[in-house]
Amino acid sequence: MQGYQPPIADYRFLLGEVLGFESAMSELGQETDLDLAMAVLDEAGRFCADILQPISREGDEVGSRIVDGAVVTPPGYSDAYRSFAEGGWAALSASPDHGGQGLPFILQLWFDEMMSAANLSFGLFPGLTRGACEAIAAHASDELKAIWLEPMVTGEWTGAMALTESGAGTDLALLKTKAEPNGDGSFAVTGTKIFISSGDHDFGCNIVHLVLARLPDAPSGVKGISLFLVPKFLPDSEGGFTVRNTMSVGALEKKMGIHAQPTCVMNYDGATGWLVGEPHRGLAAMFTMMNAERLMVGIQGLGIAGGAYQQAVGYARERLQGRSADGARGPVPILEHADVRRMLLQIRAFVESGRALAGWTALQMDRARQHPDASVRAEADAVVALLTPVVKAGFTDFGFESAVHAQQVFGGHGYIREWGMEQFVRDARIAQIYEGTNGVQAMDLVSRKLTLGGGSVVAGFLDMVEADLAAAQAHPHAEQVARQTGAALQILRDTTASLQGADIDAAGSAAVDYLRMFSLVAMGWMWARMAAAAGSGSEQHMAKLAVARYFAERMLPQVDALAKAIGSGPEAVAQLALEAF
Amino acid sequence: MQGYQPPIADYRFLLGEVLGFESAMSELGQETDLDLAMAVLDEAGRFCADILQPISREGDEVGSRIVDGAVVTPPGYSDAYRSFAEGGWAALSASPDHGGQGLPFILQLWFDEMMSAANLSFGLFPGLTRGACEAIAAHASDELKAIWLEPMVTGEWTGAMALTESGAGTDLALLKTKAEPNGDGSFAVTGTKIFISSGDHDFGCNIVHLVLARLPDAPSGVKGISLFLVPKFLPDSEGGFTVRNTMSVGALEKKMGIHAQPTCVMNYDGATGWLVGEPHRGLAAMFTMMNAERLMVGIQGLGIAGGAYQQAVGYARERLQGRSADGARGPVPILEHADVRRMLLQIRAFVESGRALAGWTALQMDRARQHPDASVRAEADAVVALLTPVVKAGFTDFGFESAVHAQQVFGGHGYIREWGMEQFVRDARIAQIYEGTNGVQAMDLVSRKLTLGGGSVVAGFLDMVEADLAAAQAHPHAEQVARQTGAALQILRDTTASLQGADIDAAGSAAVDYLRMFSLVAMGWMWARMAAAAGSGSEQHMAKLAVARYFAERMLPQVDALAKAIGSGPEAVAQLALEAF
Repeated sequence: MQGYQPPIADYRFLLGEVLGFESAMSELGQETDLDLAMAVLDEAGRFCADILQPISREGDEVGSRIVDGAVVTPPGYSDAYRSFAEGGWAALSASPDHGGQGLPFILQLWFDEMMSAANLSFGLFPGLTRGACEAIAAHASDELKAIWLEPMVTGEWTGAMALTESGAGTDLALLKTKAEPNGDGSFAVTGTKIFISSGDHDFGCNIVHLVLARLPDAPSGVKGISLFLVPKFLPDSEGGFTVRNTMSVGALEKKMGIHAQPTCVMNYDGATGWLVGEPHRGLAAMFTMMNAERLMVGIQGLGIAGGAYQQAVGYARERLQGRSADGARGPVPILEHADVRRMLLQIRAFVESGRALAGWTALQMDRARQHPDASVRAEADAVVALLTPVVKAGFTDFGFESAVHAQQVFGGHGYIREWGMEQFVRDARIAQIYEGTNGVQAMDLVSRKLTLGGGSVVAGFLDMVEADLAAAQAHPHAEQVARQTGAALQILRDTTASLQGADIDAAGSAAVDYLRMFSLVAMGWMWARMAAAAGSGSEQHMAKLAVARYFAERMLPQVDALAKAIGSGPEAVAQLALEAF
Repeated sequence: MQGYQPPIADYRFLLGEVLGFESAMSELGQETDLDLAMAVLDEAGRFCADILQPISREGDEVGSRIVDGAVVTPPGYSDAYRSFAEGGWAALSASPDHGGQGLPFILQLWFDEMMSAANLSFGLFPGLTRGACEAIAAHASDELKAIWLEPMVTGEWTGAMALTESGAGTDLALLKTKAEPNGDGSFAVTGTKIFISSGDHDFGCNIVHLVLARLPDAPSGVKGISLFLVPKFLPDSEGGFTVRNTMSVGALEKKMGIHAQPTCVMNYDGATGWLVGEPHRGLAAMFTMMNAERLMVGIQGLGIAGGAYQQAVGYARERLQGRSADGARGPVPILEHADVRRMLLQIRAFVESGRALAGWTALQMDRARQHPDASVRAEADAVVALLTPVVKAGFTDFGFESAVHAQQVFGGHGYIREWGMEQFVRDARIAQIYEGTNGVQAMDLVSRKLTLGGGSVVAGFLDMVEADLAAAQAHPHAEQVARQTGAALQILRDTTASLQGADIDAAGSAAVDYLRMFSLVAMGWMWARMAAAAGSGSEQHMAKLAVARYFAERMLPQVDALAKAIGSGPEAVAQLALEAF
C-alpha cells in the first residue's frame, strides 16, 4: 500500500476560505488562529501517516487475540498508543479543567478523520475513552471526577462503554446486568456484556468501563437503568491502582473487520463500581457518551472513504490497461477511462463535502459549549443534535459505498487481501452498525430531531442553508450547484413537513430514505459554499469547481427519486403480511 | 444458521403461471413438462440444502489450503463434489451428444441460483467446468472433443479458465504466456496465470485448464491470442490419465471471501497442451466461455440475495426488540418495525423479479439453440447477448446490496462471523468483479449491445416489453406496476437513443447508471408480468402483489434520478484534470 497523505491543503482551504474559522474562534474568545490550527493538523497528520497507517494491514491479519485470559493487540499497537498518549494527542480538545488542551473541536474531528483513514481499529481506543470522559465530566460526582477523569483525558488510562447484552442491543429496556450496593458507597456489578470495544488491551494501563446495570429496586424498562464506573484496576491503600477488579474478558468477538480492535465479551463478577449520576438515570448519561461517539463514528465513514480514495487514485495512475478515448495511445493508465473517474469522483464528492460539513458541525459544538450568549449556545446545541444522526448514518453509508467503489477500481486485485482495499470495506461496514444502527439513526432524525423546538430547529437550519445558497448563487462559478441544491432543498422542506408528526410506521418506512435526502442536501450546501469560495482560478479552486459540478449533476438527482419513494407513503412497506415474508 | 429453503413454490409459480414454460418447451419439441421440471428442481434444492449449505460456514473458516504443493479443500467439499457428479447434477442441461441430460437451461440456471445461495465457493467448481465444456464443444477439433468433453460434461473431471496474468486482466492484449509447438501437434505452454478459480483441488480427478497464450508467430495485441487445452493429467500409453503435466499451483490467493474456493496462481512450465480452435482466435473461444459464465455470475448475485434474505427474515421473526407501532405490545419481533420490513422488501423485490428474468432469459437460450426456425434462433441469441451484461452486472450489484441489507437486519450480530451474514457480503462482492468487472459489463452493454443489428435488437426487446406492459395494464391488480414501469420504459428508450453511437467517453461516463436503469425496467417488466398472473387472491398471489407495489413505489423511482444524471452529459466526469485527482 501507498503511504497515507493527510489532506492538509483541503483543511487549509476549509479553515481559511470556507468556514470562517478565525472569526468563529474570536467570537468564542478562543486564541487558536489559522497557523496554530494548521500546525496541529499537520503534526496530527504526520502521526497518522507515520505511526498508525504502517501497522494497519498487519493488525488486520494478526488481529487482537486472547493469551492467558488477557488481550494481546497486534504488533505495534501498544507502542503506538504510548506515543499517542505521550504526544498529548488524547487531550486535544478536552477542557483544560480536566487536563485537556482546550483546542477547538474541529481539530479533534479532523484528527479523527485522519486516524480513521489510517487505522480504524486504533482510533477506537481514544475515541471511546473520549466518550467515557464526556459522560463522567457531565454526570459523575466531584469525588469520582477527581480520581478518574484526568488520567483518562490525558490518555494515561483508556475507557470503554459496556452497554449491549446478548438479548439487549438497540432495545436497552431488556438488559439484565445487576448492581448491588456494597454498603460502602460502591456497588457489586454482575452480568455479561457483549460487543465491548477496547474492553481489554495490553497497553499497560487502567481501563475504565462505564457499565449499564440495574439497581435492586430498579423499575423495569429503560427507566430502571443506571450507569456505573467499573475500572479494571481498583485503588490500593497506597494511592496506586493495582487491585485487579473481578471482571474478565470472556472471549473476543470474531468479526468481519476491525480485527486489531479487541471487541470483548466482558464478564463482571461482582465487580466493584460506582454510580455515575442519579440512580435509574443511566440512559441520560449514556446518551452523553453516545452523542459524542456518533459524530465520531460518522467521521470514521468519512476517513475510510478518504483513505480508500487515495489508494484507488494511486492504483488508477499506475495500472495500464486499454486505450485512450481516441484510440491513439495504449495501454493507458486506467484513470483515463471515464468509468474509473466516475467511481473516484463519486467518492471525492462525498469526502470533500463531508469534511466541510464535519468541520462546520464541530464549530457549532464549540459554540454550544463556549459561546458567551446562552441562547446562541442553545441554538448551536440544537443544530448539532439535528445533524448528529445525519453525520453518523449519512457519512457511514456514503463511506461504505466509497470503500466499495475504491475497491472496484482495483478490479480483481481489490478482492485480494494484500492490496488492502477489501480491509477498507470490511472495516467501514461496522460504522453503519455500531453506536446505533443507521436505521436507528434515521428514526432518531425523523421521530425526534424534526420536532425539536416544535420543528423550529430544522426550520431554522433549512432557512440558514437557503440563505447560504442564495448568497452562493451570486458567484457565477457557484451558481449551478447552488441553484440545483436550492431546488433539492425545497423538496427536502416539503418532505420534512410531510414527516413531522408522522406516526411510527410512516416514520419508519421513510426514515432511511429521508436521512439520505437530508445528507445530499447538506453535502450540496457545502459544495455551494466551497464553490463560492473557489473563484481564484488556482488548481485547487478549479478542482473544487469540477467536483462541485459532478456532485450537482450526478449525485444530487437522487433527491428526486427519494422524494418520490417517500411521497408514495408507508403502505408499500405495510402491505405484505408479516407471515408472508 | 438456519437451513436453506429452496424457493420451490416460486419456481412453480413462474413456470406454471408466468413464463409459459410448457408451451415454450413444446415449441422446441422438448418433452420436459411442468411436473418433471418441478421434480428436478425439488431434488436439486434438496441437494443444495442438505449437502452444500451445511459445509459453507466451515468452508469459509478453514478455507482451501496448499499442502505439499497441492490444494486441500475444506472438510466435506470433496465428498460433496463426488455426490454432485455421481448424482448426475453436472450434466443437467448439457447436450446428450456429449453425455448431458439435455434438460432445459432454465433448470440449470435456477439450480445455479440455489447452489449460490447455499454455497458460492462450491458452485464455482461445476460452473467453470460448464464454461470450459461450452468452449470445447464450440471450438475444439473432433479429436480433442472425443477425448476431453464427455468426462467434463458428466463431472468426472473438472475445468478451469486460465486467462488473467498479473499485468493483464481486463486488457488481455497485454498477456505474455507463450505456447511453442512440440512438433507432435501439441504445444508447450509456459507462463504464470493468476486468479484461477478451481485451478487445483483434491477431488481426485483430472482438471482441464483452458489457457490463453501466444504462439511464436503471433501478432501483438488481442489478435495474437490462442486458446489451449492443458490438463493436469496427460494420457498415458494404456488409455489412462496418469502422467502429471508440468503445471503447478504457485500459491493460493488470500481473498476477501469465497475462502473454500481455491483461487490459484498457476505456473505452466512447458506444460503440454493442444490448440482449441484456430490459431490467434483464442478470444472468440474465450468469449464463448465468458458469456456462459457471465450469466452464471449474475445468478450468483441472485442466489446470495435469496439466501441472505431467508436468514434475515428468520432473525427478524425471532429477535425481540422495541414495541409495536401502537405502543401496546413489547418487546416485539423486529419484523414488526417498518424499517426492517423495508430492508427485507428491498431484497425480495429484486430476488423475485431477478429470478423471473433469469428464467425468461434461460428460455431464450434454449430457443437460441434448439428452435427449428433459424431466424427465431438468431433473434433469441441476440436478446440473450443484450441481456447478458444486464444480468451479470445488474444482478450482482443488487445482490451485493441485498447481502448488505440482510446483514444490517442482524445489527451487531451481522458483523460477527459465526452468524454467517458477513460471509454473504464477502462472498457476494467477488461477483461484481470477476468475469469482467461490472464497469466492463456496462461498457459492453452501451458500446456493443445497444448497436447490435443496427439498434434493432434493443428496439425489438423494448417493443416486446412495452407490449407486455400494455397487456398487464388490463389486469386491475397489475395496472400500477405496469403503468409505472411503462413510464420508466419511455425514459429508458430516450436514454438508449441518446447513447447509441456515443463516443467512448460519453458511453463510459453513463454506462453504469444506464445499466442500472435497464435492470430496473427489466425488473419492473417481470413484476408486471407476475402481477398480471397473480389475481387469484391466494396467499402467494397476494404476496406477489404486495412486493410488486413495493417495487413500483419505492425502487422504480431511481430511474428518474439515473436519467437526470445521464442526461447531464459526460462533462462532469471529464472536467477534473487527471493530475488533480
